[in-house]
Amino acid sequence: MEENEQLIIEGRNAVREAFRAGRTIDKLYVQDGLKDGPILALVSKAKKADAIVNFVSRERLDEMSETGKHQGVIAHAAAYAYAEVEDLLAGAEKKGQPPFFFLLDDIEDPHNLGAIIRSANLMGANGVIIPKRRAVGLTATVAKASAGAINYTPVARVANLAQTIKQLKKQGMWFVCADMDGELMYDLNLTGPIGVVIGNEGSGVSRLVKEKCDFIARIPMNGDIDSLNASVAAGVLGYEIVRQRLKKG
Amino acid sequence: MEENEQLIIEGRNAVREAFRAGRTIDKLYVQDGLKDGPILALVSKAKKADAIVNFVSRERLDEMSETGKHQGVIAHAAAYAYAEVEDLLAGAEKKGQPPFFFLLDDIEDPHNLGAIIRSANLMGANGVIIPKRRAVGLTATVAKASAGAINYTPVARVANLAQTIKQLKKQGMWFVCADMDGELMYDLNLTGPIGVVIGNEGSGVSRLVKEKCDFIARIPMNGDIDSLNASVAAGVLGYEIVRQRLKKG
Repeated sequence: MEENEQLIIEGRNAVREAFRAGRTIDKLYVQDGLKDGPILALVSKAKKADAIVNFVSRERLDEMSETGKHQGVIAHAAAYAYAEVEDLLAGAEKKGQPPFFFLLDDIEDPHNLGAIIRSANLMGANGVIIPKRRAVGLTATVAKASAGAINYTPVARVANLAQTIKQLKKQGMWFVCADMDGELMYDLNLTGPIGVVIGNEGSGVSRLVKEKCDFIARIPMNGDIDSLNASVAAGVLGYEIVRQRLKKG
Repeated sequence: MEENEQLIIEGRNAVREAFRAGRTIDKLYVQDGLKDGPILALVSKAKKADAIVNFVSRERLDEMSETGKHQGVIAHAAAYAYAEVEDLLAGAEKKGQPPFFFLLDDIEDPHNLGAIIRSANLMGANGVIIPKRRAVGLTATVAKASAGAINYTPVARVANLAQTIKQLKKQGMWFVCADMDGELMYDLNLTGPIGVVIGNEGSGVSRLVKEKCDFIARIPMNGDIDSLNASVAAGVLGYEIVRQRLKKG
């Protein structure tokens, strides 16, 4: 993937240029009540480009602004380019292996996202799918935490994770989510074409996504606290798939 | 373990009070060239309490100071109390299980240390051993990243990790370190009394420590980059021990 430096883009011209240059804009923040031609043109471009548009108060924009010259608009651009879900499937086909994806249900911590991309790379997984809304995107912190894996392992962004799961199931994929009320992961057969769903750091896998999963896998826990760190859980469950595919143990 | 709030203690009276109150002082920073009675008394107390004493320039102390009133001395106190290696052994005996420890060879990132304490707790491991020098101690960030596990899973601090391994081997323990040039972890028998050695984020396990290990375990890697995040590697190798003890797979 192509690396870019700028992450926060402020001002009407700068944001327009970013769209013109084909940058991936994750989010556009527009000052509430502004309805002049240039602003409406930017909102329209953002919607076409599938960016999330947020209307916020001028005070909020002032707070977000690094330059103090936002002119009513601030864009958050991806530090790295996103892939498409089709790219991940193509990657699996090229390797001649059943697909092996990670799907992150609202991971918020950029260190966790980076560490999961890093683990996915080393497991030989074909990529990572993240939702557009709420969750953290491909920032410079994520890139650093991925230890370079972001340059090799594609990350796709989708509007609705449950819908994506539904579509991929039609193409023969199975989905497993990590949760405490599931079956012990060693007792599941996870060797087929599989998507591993990892939930939010605080609230776990959301109900709508969990309902779409074929398996609920339990990582054995024998301690005093509730749950593993999200990137550790992704590593442990992902490596159980690696082990089963290697037929080891 | 007892939780304390203050982490950085500045000024002669405050540091003297901290020693008097029995706080665990990890490190004492003393201004180069100061040799008056009160300073020498603090240095002597620090050495008795097994704290690391660093002599630094006044400029460095000024930089470290949060209050601007360090009076030539700043102490770093542990946010949580440390245990002894004997406490970890006693914990294993109490559980009626072979000992299962993590030994961290200079983990520097507090999020990694916290995540490893968290994982150790959930694996039912008996504790974590860290070296006194260089590595990160039990700060508030570590406590937070441990998700509360620091209240249950003891962390012992030792002067020399290789020496500790040597002593514990005499008591029947085996040691496995994670490294790329080792044997595939699934092919090793890791069910006995075991210490898992995780290396530094950048440089891995040091030579002296690695030489003391009985096994070198390789986590299978099939990607473009070099290594897993340290807390993920600890999770994956640690859970292989859990799996083997459960006789699963």
